[in-house]
Amino acid sequence: MPLKGFSVPLSPEGRASLTPVPPWHYVGDILAVDFAAHPAAVAALLPPGLEPDPEDPGGCVAFFVSWQYASDAGDEYLDPARSQYNELLLLVNAVYRGGASAAAGAGIGAGPAGGAAGAGAAALAGRRVQTCPYIYVDKDTSMARGWIQGWPKKFGEVHTTRAFPLTCKAGGPVAPGARFGGTLAANGRRLAEAVVELEGVSADPVYLGKRPVVNMRYFPQLAGRATAPAPVWELVRSIMSGVQRTDVWEGSATLRFFPAPDNELDALQPLEVRRGYRYSMAMTIEDLEVLETVRAGN
Amino acid sequence: MPLKGFSVPLSPEGRASLTPVPPWHYVGDILAVDFAAHPAAVAALLPPGLEPDPEDPGGCVAFFVSWQYASDAGDEYLDPARSQYNELLLLVNAVYRGGASAAAGAGIGAGPAGGAAGAGAAALAGRRVQTCPYIYVDKDTSMARGWIQGWPKKFGEVHTTRAFPLTCKAGGPVAPGARFGGTLAANGRRLAEAVVELEGVSADPVYLGKRPVVNMRYFPQLAGRATAPAPVWELVRSIMSGVQRTDVWEGSATLRFFPAPDNELDALQPLEVRRGYRYSMAMTIEDLEVLETVRAGN
Amino acid sequence: MPLKGFSVPLSPEGRASLTPVPPWHYVGDILAVDFAAHPAAVAALLPPGLEPDPEDPGGCVAFFVSWQYASDAGDEYLDPARSQYNELLLLVNAVYRGGASAAAGAGIGAGPAGGAAGAGAAALAGRRVQTCPYIYVDKDTSMARGWIQGWPKKFGEVHTTRAFPLTCKAGGPVAPGARFGGTLAANGRRLAEAVVELEGVSADPVYLGKRPVVNMRYFPQLAGRATAPAPVWELVRSIMSGVQRTDVWEGSATLRFFPAPDNELDALQPLEVRRGYRYSMAMTIEDLEVLETVRAGN
Amino acid sequence: MPLKGFSVPLSPEGRASLTPVPPWHYVGDILAVDFAAHPAAVAALLPPGLEPDPEDPGGCVAFFVSWQYASDAGDEYLDPARSQYNELLLLVNAVYRGGASAAAGAGIGAGPAGGAAGAGAAALAGRRVQTCPYIYVDKDTSMARGWIQGWPKKFGEVHTTRAFPLTCKAGGPVAPGARFGGTLAANGRRLAEAVVELEGVSADPVYLGKRPVVNMRYFPQLAGRATAPAPVWELVRSIMSGVQRTDVWEGSATLRFFPAPDNELDALQPLEVRRGYRYSMAMTIEDLEVLETVRAGN
Repeated sequence: MPLKGFSVPLSPEGRASLTPVPPWHYVGDILAVDFAAHPAAVAALLPPGLEPDPEDPGGCVAFFVSWQYASDAGDEYLDPARSQYNELLLLVNAVYRGGASAAAGAGIGAGPAGGAAGAGAAALAGRRVQTCPYIYVDKDTSMARGWIQGWPKKFGEVHTTRAFPLTCKAGGPVAPGARFGGTLAANGRRLAEAVVELEGVSADPVYLGKRPVVNMRYFPQLAGRATAPAPVWELVRSIMSGVQRTDVWEGSATLRFFPAPDNELDALQPLEVRRGYRYSMAMTIEDLEVLETVRAGN
Repeated sequence: MPLKGFSVPLSPEGRASLTPVPPWHYVGDILAVDFAAHPAAVAALLPPGLEPDPEDPGGCVAFFVSWQYASDAGDEYLDPARSQYNELLLLVNAVYRGGASAAAGAGIGAGPAGGAAGAGAAALAGRRVQTCPYIYVDKDTSMARGWIQGWPKKFGEVHTTRAFPLTCKAGGPVAPGARFGGTLAANGRRLAEAVVELEGVSADPVYLGKRPVVNMRYFPQLAGRATAPAPVWELVRSIMSGVQRTDVWEGSATLRFFPAPDNELDALQPLEVRRGYRYSMAMTIEDLEVLETVRAGN
Repeated sequence: MPLKGFSVPLSPEGRASLTPVPPWHYVGDILAVDFAAHPAAVAALLPPGLEPDPEDPGGCVAFFVSWQYASDAGDEYLDPARSQYNELLLLVNAVYRGGASAAAGAGIGAGPAGGAAGAGAAALAGRRVQTCPYIYVDKDTSMARGWIQGWPKKFGEVHTTRAFPLTCKAGGPVAPGARFGGTLAANGRRLAEAVVELEGVSADPVYLGKRPVVNMRYFPQLAGRATAPAPVWELVRSIMSGVQRTDVWEGSATLRFFPAPDNELDALQPLEVRRGYRYSMAMTIEDLEVLETVRAGN
Repeated sequence: MPLKGFSVPLSPEGRASLTPVPPWHYVGDILAVDFAAHPAAVAALLPPGLEPDPEDPGGCVAFFVSWQYASDAGDEYLDPARSQYNELLLLVNAVYRGGASAAAGAGIGAGPAGGAAGAGAAALAGRRVQTCPYIYVDKDTSMARGWIQGWPKKFGEVHTTRAFPLTCKAGGPVAPGARFGGTLAANGRRLAEAVVELEGVSADPVYLGKRPVVNMRYFPQLAGRATAPAPVWELVRSIMSGVQRTDVWEGSATLRFFPAPDNELDALQPLEVRRGYRYSMAMTIEDLEVLETVRAGN
């Protein structure tokens, strides 16, 4: 009887696995802050295959999200201790070079399975994209799903002001003048805090998925005293299906990062905070596109 | 320069206090389950001054609540790591005897400051009320405010399914057929779980504050090797002001309690689960009514 | 059948109470840092009845402790999820005026039960003592026991480097050159961090209980819109019995506090860090001495 | 400037990485329980390449560990909020078939890099080993290091009774009659609890590393709608260097597992609890041996 499940730990019934077989369904409330970091700080974060975005080389977005999750078969959302988690997701601007140049640039084979870059890579070549250098969540299942998709998740405590259908001094609905805060801490140190004050529905909103997201999927090898190339080292394109979004509200925003010995978020300290956004979204994740192999491991 | 604040730790600026001076403003999403426990189990929980409710002696309600808080001066809701907390609040049915009979029954002085029962006690005498035997929260500030008001709070991890303005497999809006779960754990043991499936807006809803809530305010004395009567041992009536409520939705419900060595929730194991409810509420707390002294401490 | 237990929630079997009837037994590993804060900052923290220590008006000690607990009847230490907790305890120097002068100074009645100060107050009058302005723990049971004894406990995440009976790069035994760190965070913000490097067994050690500890026991009243005096407002002397201590090791130390909107620890920022200490202790708590009533509540 | 670090997130300075480049140094206190589960339950957990141990097909060990960690360069142990974590590690008995038979059995290529099984595989062929089906930790850095080495880590809250150099009712030193408990919870449900009562130093102790540990290193592929084989699917042999151990104490033990919807630990419910053990150990991890590829992914 083979072991079942999608990720470790595989198990006889497949219930122990950190994540069941996709599709994975999500719904969440999102507080986003669009900002500009120092272009050199953004460039320093780009994996091989991505280049600075010449039109907006310092452009970044921080998304504070309160997620609720369920698998296809399951009713996990009825066991909220397991299905709810909070996330801070950073995206930074880049241009995707395309597999050919990536291969040339890295001097190594490119494309899925060590071959040529795929059709998706060609279609995306030269386009403005975003990539995620840092992302924090408060649940192991989300961390595992993240690594598998190229989201480099670490643990963090993320909180976001909730909207309520009543107005009082402790909060209220999404409306002009409503304010929402977001915070991140890890290992007992505050790493980020933001406040957005809404003005109205955005005519040109920033939202998750507005640009293609190209992430680096990376899983290292310890054998050989950590000298071997990572056996999984790919550029992948994130695929969301069944996306629904509410109106995206927009307003003024503040955002600060704080230093910590085990994080480098503060290298992205905003030079300019642009606008803040708030909305809800639902989506399904069941696939991923491998654009190219950064370097073929063993 | 006197020390400032409302609770310990008092401090020079008053910022260190677990809770600032009231008023305290709250807004929350509530999932409630109305149920009947064994009447003897409810009777065993009633403090001196309360008697079983002859019309519904086993009647109880469990409220799973996601709260957001702010003080009068502050914008705590913009620092959600501090201002959000989750709660499971149990209420059980009772009849308030009134201060005179309480004094007679306990053989001890009654009324505020050891005198006669107050006007509020007389007004409430003989009325059907509810009292809180057990309540769990996940924030120290809420625990402190609770003790001060007679809510006997302990720490617990409470999660409740959130409503979202989009419909998907991971959740959705408040609507017919929508399901919401609530869970409680403490010290790594699951203590309670509930699921409510909504049918429609309730014509006769159950909600927090429907009946007067009479709690026992109790703060013991260790001096004298814990043999002295508690210096604070009162029956108090909870006062909420500025109450707002959305429509209360109603539907079918399940509820289970689980045993643990340091909890007695399972003595209230439902004999009958009645109906479930979901709504949002906002309120302010800035006062409390002392009905009577149960027993005068030193 | 009366409700049982020592603190809320009282319950039919007494198992639900946050803390059982004393005695309470403790054993812990302690990392202490002796330091001097600004004398004005210490003076600003002293409750009525305590005056600055003229010999060392800025003297303070920070104790990082990893505790393990059991009640008299119980084997809680075998359920370590319940019986272990971590604590950061601050003590600051003071002189106890004695009940008579306290009464004169405050213009209000002094002594237990609103009468004269007790014999203990007379014995302690004019003596150098210490008092606890701030203390942080990570367990509700400890917070409840603290409030009852006059320790103004809040929640905090406290970690202390452990000693091990093997020497390696990740730690080792108590020995010359061994280093130990301590950290405190609350609501996702780091509030304190310390490092002690041991030199040898101390000839004149600092330890918990070296001086009498006089704390303010305080439990406020919300009734009357929080305008009434606190019904519990006493100066109490902490009593530890059955104290055992290992050798106390001593060495150099560092200590820093960090600002936070809901804490005032950083007002005690060290002007001078004196010495660090490490040892283990065991003790029992089953009693408390009320020195005087600061102000009689209702 | 290339990105630095050993695991995600790679970053400009390498400080953000969940784990720095090895070696990784550990010291910990270990409470172990040797037990027999149903042989069929153990067999159902074995990955391809491992077969039941004919001499003790139900043999398992549960290790509750309190770890402290530091990297080669760093002093992480002085920042205990980052460097301490707790773990419950399960090992089950097996026999390693050896790469040749594994290849034949699985009908797929075997050996590192899809080639022949390595020299280590030949040396281990036919030998009695152990493998880890389930392991729980409370820190993200440990979870990441685990995945990289083939330990299928999930999050869990693990607590173990501490030893102290003083004897009291709340605990004491390692000595005849001393008792130690261990507990595991995940997502607010208790999953395991154990108690060991020591008798004396063991003449034939059970300890971590007594047998070779062969784990399955597994990292799946989402691209292609999760239908592609895992790109990392290896059998690896765990390598510990610089191992130090104190005396191993032995005594009687109890162990129970509890059911949960997202765990299958209770399938290993002990049929017989053998002996319990307690000791401390230190070690370094800087290498891993790939025995064979279970199945070559893309």
